[in-house]
Amino acid sequence: MKVDGRWRRAIEVDADGAVLVLDQTRLPFAIAWRRLATVDDAASAIRTMVVRGAPLIGVTAAWGLALALRVDASDAGLDAACTQLAATRPTAVNLRWAIDRVRARVVDVAVSGRADAATAAAIQLADDDVAMCAAIGGHGVPLIEAAAQGGRADILTHCNAGWIATVDWGTALAPIYQAHEAGVPVHVWVDETRPRNQGLLTAWELAQHGVPHTVIADNAGGHLMQHGRVGLCLVGTDRTTRRGDVCNKIGTYLKALAAHDNDVPFWVAAPSPSIDWRLADGADVPIEERAADEVRRVVGREGAVTIVDDRSAVANPAFDVTPHRLVTGLITERGRCAATADGLRGLFPDHA
Amino acid sequence: MKVDGRWRRAIEVDADGAVLVLDQTRLPFAIAWRRLATVDDAASAIRTMVVRGAPLIGVTAAWGLALALRVDASDAGLDAACTQLAATRPTAVNLRWAIDRVRARVVDVAVSGRADAATAAAIQLADDDVAMCAAIGGHGVPLIEAAAQGGRADILTHCNAGWIATVDWGTALAPIYQAHEAGVPVHVWVDETRPRNQGLLTAWELAQHGVPHTVIADNAGGHLMQHGRVGLCLVGTDRTTRRGDVCNKIGTYLKALAAHDNDVPFWVAAPSPSIDWRLADGADVPIEERAADEVRRVVGREGAVTIVDDRSAVANPAFDVTPHRLVTGLITERGRCAATADGLRGLFPDHA
Repeated sequence: MKVDGRWRRAIEVDADGAVLVLDQTRLPFAIAWRRLATVDDAASAIRTMVVRGAPLIGVTAAWGLALALRVDASDAGLDAACTQLAATRPTAVNLRWAIDRVRARVVDVAVSGRADAATAAAIQLADDDVAMCAAIGGHGVPLIEAAAQGGRADILTHCNAGWIATVDWGTALAPIYQAHEAGVPVHVWVDETRPRNQGLLTAWELAQHGVPHTVIADNAGGHLMQHGRVGLCLVGTDRTTRRGDVCNKIGTYLKALAAHDNDVPFWVAAPSPSIDWRLADGADVPIEERAADEVRRVVGREGAVTIVDDRSAVANPAFDVTPHRLVTGLITERGRCAATADGLRGLFPDHA
Repeated sequence: MKVDGRWRRAIEVDADGAVLVLDQTRLPFAIAWRRLATVDDAASAIRTMVVRGAPLIGVTAAWGLALALRVDASDAGLDAACTQLAATRPTAVNLRWAIDRVRARVVDVAVSGRADAATAAAIQLADDDVAMCAAIGGHGVPLIEAAAQGGRADILTHCNAGWIATVDWGTALAPIYQAHEAGVPVHVWVDETRPRNQGLLTAWELAQHGVPHTVIADNAGGHLMQHGRVGLCLVGTDRTTRRGDVCNKIGTYLKALAAHDNDVPFWVAAPSPSIDWRLADGADVPIEERAADEVRRVVGREGAVTIVDDRSAVANPAFDVTPHRLVTGLITERGRCAATADGLRGLFPDHA
């Protein structure tokens, strides 16, 4: 999507073959692109969260392998690069999946051809992700048109499921960008999303692309729904079970409850790699407890300030699970379905 | 309750007859007491939110009148002081009620006796408020004992309905302090309460008094309730209608929904001056839209930082309404009742 008026991807290749990524540790307060020239640069970018979002992490790792093989394409070089990249964020599923995919594409290629093969695999991984997000966007547009009812669609979103968490388009924001591009009047209520304030990344994206939006405290969404000011809720997911329970950023469940209480459709953009076919009950998803400092400190343009001192304990669960009964439906790259085992089976008989 | 180990009130009189208030513009980052020697000092303290919370504002205004009459107890002096104090926060109901009450106590007194009469009225107003909060505390303790089930009671609260919003004890926190004093093991989940972070005032109060507590992002409460980690929700109210709809700090409704979805009792501490007998439907309560800067900026110990810049719009509704169907019951100074017209009528037949 657009940055400073120019259409960009979250990861790009420059004329010299180096990889450029948008530095997400600086957003939303500064726009800085970082050049990844070596596998060390790529590994560091993932580890320090210069790049974030499961799809983008996977693509960055794929490019990291390609950069490594330009220097040393031997079996030992390939193994070392895979190990180095896989260790950056050991729990990220997409990361290992992307590394395995590139490795499989190059391991049987002659050493002299491996760098090119890895580059081709990285390019394809990125393009596949863009296509998946674009497809989700297309399947979501009719929901926005329905919410607009000939006027403006007011859409509430939580966290950042935007293009900077992927390569382009995003997941939950893809339908919004596509509707906006198609001339459907949209306005987005952006949950701040404490404690890490990923909503500010969403606001930054939308501002850069020219999509009307309003930032609200996480507390405000229920009140807005009670007063008919939200036509549609649209969020992403970190993991969705095969029966449609949705694990997503902490606070998603509260918005789903409010949507249900006020008959507001609540849709989840769920690309198939985010669906966990092994799990049925969302209660079985382990919930990460993150660092207390994310609650104790707030980062702003001028720096960070302390809001909770050591005299008070802090808890920081990072995700919650919205039971499928509160989810109107899922938007996947293959189309929309009910948030049920039957709904998902209908779209993905190969996984059922 | 305790500050630095000593039992204090939020408004006190020193040996010289001057009034001391805890400066709430400095909390939770500094403990500073401010001396109010004149009616101008009192008016300024209310206007600049050195004091906040409807009961405390009322008592401060009463003391302001007493201070004014020490200098000029004539009819003209009385009128001028009433006008000056009433203009500080024109929408605060308690403010006018307290001024009217003191005025009625002094207007028929000889000029030479008015200052003493006003002082007596201010003292009584403060003591009445303490008694009301203490009674709410007593009526709430059994709920905490029930939640504890012989172990620890985990109580979630939102915003600050503590002693610093009143004179002592608070409303929603009164039962918690009383249970703690009585040796019932309690632990409080404290919602941060964006955008103004009044939860940090609650955390400060609880830390000063030695009550175990944990600060959480507003997004976390639903997840905690899903996992059985909240035994009771206890909040205050800015205005409760005669059928039990509860207007309180923005975000209260979301927690009530989560409590209802997880069978967690949701109780509201509602002193009778906060009950609006003229209104039935909570939807008729006007909701204040506050300054965007409260969302755009976050105040911490080191100062304030900007988190949302001018490229994004901001909305800041300050309150929401929780329908009475989601409220387990009300705790008033006369006892507990269902959040219904019948329930309130039973305790307050004089208002029905």
